[in-house]
Amino acid sequence: MQTLSDEQSLSHYGRDWTRFWPARPSKVVFPETVDEVVELVRQARADGQALVPSGGRTGLSGGAVAAHGEVVVSMERMRKLIEVDEFEPSICVQAGMTVGAVQTAAAEHGLFYPVDWAAAASSQVGGSIATNAGGIRVLRYGMTREWVRGLKVVTGTGELLELNRGLIKNNTGMDLRQLMIGSEGTLGIIVEATLGLLPTPPEASVLLLGFSGLDALMPALAELRQGLSLSAFEFFDRRCIDHVEAALGRGFPLDADACPYYAVVEFEDPGQQNQEAALARFEALMEAGHVLDGTLSQSGAQAEELWAWREAISESIAPRTPYKNDLSVRISRVPAFLEALDALVRERYPDFEVLWFGHIGDGNLHMNVLRPEDWSTEDFHAAGRELSPAVFELVQRYEGSVSAEHGVGLLKRDDLHWSRSETEIELMRAIKRQFDPDGILNPGKVLPG
Amino acid sequence: MQTLSDEQSLSHYGRDWTRFWPARPSKVVFPETVDEVVELVRQARADGQALVPSGGRTGLSGGAVAAHGEVVVSMERMRKLIEVDEFEPSICVQAGMTVGAVQTAAAEHGLFYPVDWAAAASSQVGGSIATNAGGIRVLRYGMTREWVRGLKVVTGTGELLELNRGLIKNNTGMDLRQLMIGSEGTLGIIVEATLGLLPTPPEASVLLLGFSGLDALMPALAELRQGLSLSAFEFFDRRCIDHVEAALGRGFPLDADACPYYAVVEFEDPGQQNQEAALARFEALMEAGHVLDGTLSQSGAQAEELWAWREAISESIAPRTPYKNDLSVRISRVPAFLEALDALVRERYPDFEVLWFGHIGDGNLHMNVLRPEDWSTEDFHAAGRELSPAVFELVQRYEGSVSAEHGVGLLKRDDLHWSRSETEIELMRAIKRQFDPDGILNPGKVLPG
Repeated sequence: MQTLSDEQSLSHYGRDWTRFWPARPSKVVFPETVDEVVELVRQARADGQALVPSGGRTGLSGGAVAAHGEVVVSMERMRKLIEVDEFEPSICVQAGMTVGAVQTAAAEHGLFYPVDWAAAASSQVGGSIATNAGGIRVLRYGMTREWVRGLKVVTGTGELLELNRGLIKNNTGMDLRQLMIGSEGTLGIIVEATLGLLPTPPEASVLLLGFSGLDALMPALAELRQGLSLSAFEFFDRRCIDHVEAALGRGFPLDADACPYYAVVEFEDPGQQNQEAALARFEALMEAGHVLDGTLSQSGAQAEELWAWREAISESIAPRTPYKNDLSVRISRVPAFLEALDALVRERYPDFEVLWFGHIGDGNLHMNVLRPEDWSTEDFHAAGRELSPAVFELVQRYEGSVSAEHGVGLLKRDDLHWSRSETEIELMRAIKRQFDPDGILNPGKVLPG
Repeated sequence: MQTLSDEQSLSHYGRDWTRFWPARPSKVVFPETVDEVVELVRQARADGQALVPSGGRTGLSGGAVAAHGEVVVSMERMRKLIEVDEFEPSICVQAGMTVGAVQTAAAEHGLFYPVDWAAAASSQVGGSIATNAGGIRVLRYGMTREWVRGLKVVTGTGELLELNRGLIKNNTGMDLRQLMIGSEGTLGIIVEATLGLLPTPPEASVLLLGFSGLDALMPALAELRQGLSLSAFEFFDRRCIDHVEAALGRGFPLDADACPYYAVVEFEDPGQQNQEAALARFEALMEAGHVLDGTLSQSGAQAEELWAWREAISESIAPRTPYKNDLSVRISRVPAFLEALDALVRERYPDFEVLWFGHIGDGNLHMNVLRPEDWSTEDFHAAGRELSPAVFELVQRYEGSVSAEHGVGLLKRDDLHWSRSETEIELMRAIKRQFDPDGILNPGKVLPG
C-alpha cells in the first residue's frame, strides 16, 4: 500500500475546502482493495491510531481535515467501476470513483445519476454518501440518501458490512445503511456503493426571473410548479450579481437594479414543447406583480449561460473569504425566516455585505457575509463567530437546521445542539461507540467533545 | 387514560392479522396525548412492564402480537389531523390516524399520499412507519420511508424525540428518524408524524397482459417503461385466477389457460391521451412473443375491474391458510430466482399448490403455498416450517431479503440471519439497548433471542 509523508502531500491530503484548521496528518495511505482497508483499520485499532477517511476533500465543514497527526486514508486508488445494470438501472462502484465519473459512466449507457452540485466532478462517491450531498436538483430528485441502494463499509472494528445489497425492498430490521449515509466517516469507511440511476431526463429549459420581493418567491414557486415539471428553483439576491459579472466578464441579461431577488428556474422541455406553457406562467406572475422581469432560454447553450448566474456565485465571492452558513427551515417558513435573519445581521453589522442564495424550493439558504476589504481575515472570522449564536438561536426558534447539506465536521460540531437535542446527541454518541468502540474513525468530528 | 382488560378486548387487541400466536396481553391502554404516552412509558420502565405499541394490527409478521402478558398501547385514540400544509405540501398527524384517513384528508386539499396497499384503510400511520410499509406503487413512489419528513417518538426511557421536524434538508449528524422507520416498535413509540404529499396525479389506465413465460416479464417491463409513465407492474401466475374468479363471482377477461403469468400494468393516462402509445407497446410485445394476450381499460371503472384480479388474490386464498413468504432479490435476478424457488418447492412437495404474485418491478415476490384441503392447519404449517430453511438458503444465495415489506416481528425473528450478518444483528442489539435499555418496548420482536 502506497504511503506518503512528505510535507506537500501531508498538506494537500490533510485538508478539505475549508481553511480554518492546519493540515497535520502523520501520513497518507492509499489502499487499493477492500481487504487492505480492513487490514489497516485492524492495525490502527491495535495501535490506537486515529484515521481520517478521505475522498475528494471538497467538503465545507472540515470533515476530512487531519489536524492532529491522524493517518489520512485516501480512497483515490479505489475508483473502479464494478458494474452498470442497465435494467434496474443501477451502478456499482468503488468509493473513490468521482461523482462526475459516475455521471459520465451512466451517460455512456443512456442513463443518468441525478445528484449534482458544483464540486461533483472532483467529489468522490464515498464522500458524497458520507455527507449525504444535496445540490441543485434536490427539489426534483432528493439528496444522495435516496439513491444509495447498497453499501460496503468497514467499521471501526475492522468488520466489513454489506448493507442492503442493492435491494429495493428489504424490511429485515434496522436499516444500518441509513446510519452510514451522512455519518461523515465517524462510523465506518465506505468502500463500495450501489447507486440507483434513471433514464436520461428530457432536455430542459431555463427561466431567469426577477422578483418584486421576498414574499413573491413562494407564490411564484407554487405557480410555476402547477404547469411545469421543475427540476430546479435556485434563488439569489441582487447583491450577488456584481460579483458574478466581475468573475464572468459579462453583463447580467436583466436589469440588475430592478429587483431585489432573482431565480434560475429549470424545467423539463423536450423539443421545446413547454415554452408556451412557461411563457403563460411567466405572464401570470407578471400580472400578479410577483415577477418584474425575466428571460427564457431558447437553446441548451443559453440555458447554460443563465445557469452561470447562480452557479458562479460561490467562486466569485471566495476572495472575500465569506462567513458562510448553510441553513434550512421548513419551506413555508423561508420568507419569514430570511427576513428576520437578514434584519438581525444588518442590525449587528450594518457595514457588512450580506449575500443570500440557495435552494429555496428545499428550504435551504446559503448565507454569505463578505469580509470588508479593509478587515483582516482573523478579525472578520472573530466577528462571524460572535454573530453565530444569534443566527443559530433564530434557526432554533424556526425549528430549522444549522447544516442543511454541508454536514457538521469540525465547523458545526459545537453548534449541533441548536438543531439536535441533548438526548439525540447522547444517542449518537452511544451509536458511535458501537461502530467504533476505540474512537479511531475521524475522532473529533460531528459530535461535540 | 382508558384501560380495558375484558377477555374480548384482550383477544382483539392482542393480535394482528397473523394467527400463529395466542393473544394474551395483561391489559390494553388508550393514551390520548403525547404526555400520557411519556408517562406510561416511564411508569412501565419503573415497573419493568413490557409494552406492545399497537396500531391497526394489520401486520403479517406478528409485530403487534401480545402473547406474554404485555400491556398493549393502542394508539387509536390519538388520531387527530394536526395540519395540512398545502404549499410544501405535507400533512402532520397523530400516529393513530389511519393511512386511509390521511389519503382522504390529502384528497380534500387536492393532494395525494402515494403509499398504498390493501390494508391501508385500517392501518395506522404509526404502524405504517414502524413497518416501513410498501405496497402496490413502490415502483413509482417508493416505500413509506421516503415520505416521512418528521417524527415524534417516545423512547424506551420515556424521552420524547422530535426527529427532523419536517425539513427537506438536514445534515446535522445521524438521521435517527431513519432508525425509527421499520423499527417495529422496538426502539420507540411513534406518536406523531409529518408526511410529504404530492399533487393529485393524472388519471391512470390499466393494461392486463398475459405473458408467454417467466423470461418474458423483465423485457416486457423494460419495454413498457420506455413509452409509458408506469405507476404499477403487478404480476400473478395463472393458478391465482381460479381463486379470484370464485371470490369475485365473475370470469377472467382473458383466456386464463393461455399464459403462465399475467400482470396488471398501471400507467398515467390523463384524458386517455396515452392509449395509442400503450397499444403500440402492447403490439410490440405481442410481436416479440413476450405477450400473448391482453386488454386495456377504457374507463376508470374498467381499470378498477382489472385491478381486482391482482388485489383480490390474498383474500381469495385466505381460507386455504397459505404458508406465505415475502421475498425480494435484485430486480435483474427475479426470473432466475423465481424459477429456482418454484422448482425447489415442487420437488419437495409435488402435491402442494404454489401461487406466485407480487411487485415484480421492485424485485418483491409473494410466495403462497396453499394447504391441501385434506391437511390440518397444524400439519401444513409444520411442513411449511420444514420447507423454510431451503427457501431462505436460496434467498441468501441470491443475496435477497427474507422479508421485503412485511417486516420481521415474531415470524421472521429467527430467520433474520439469512439476510443479515451476525455483526449486523449484534449492532442492532446494541442500538436497541441505547433506545430501550430495559427492554420494555416490544420485547422478543425483530431480534433473535
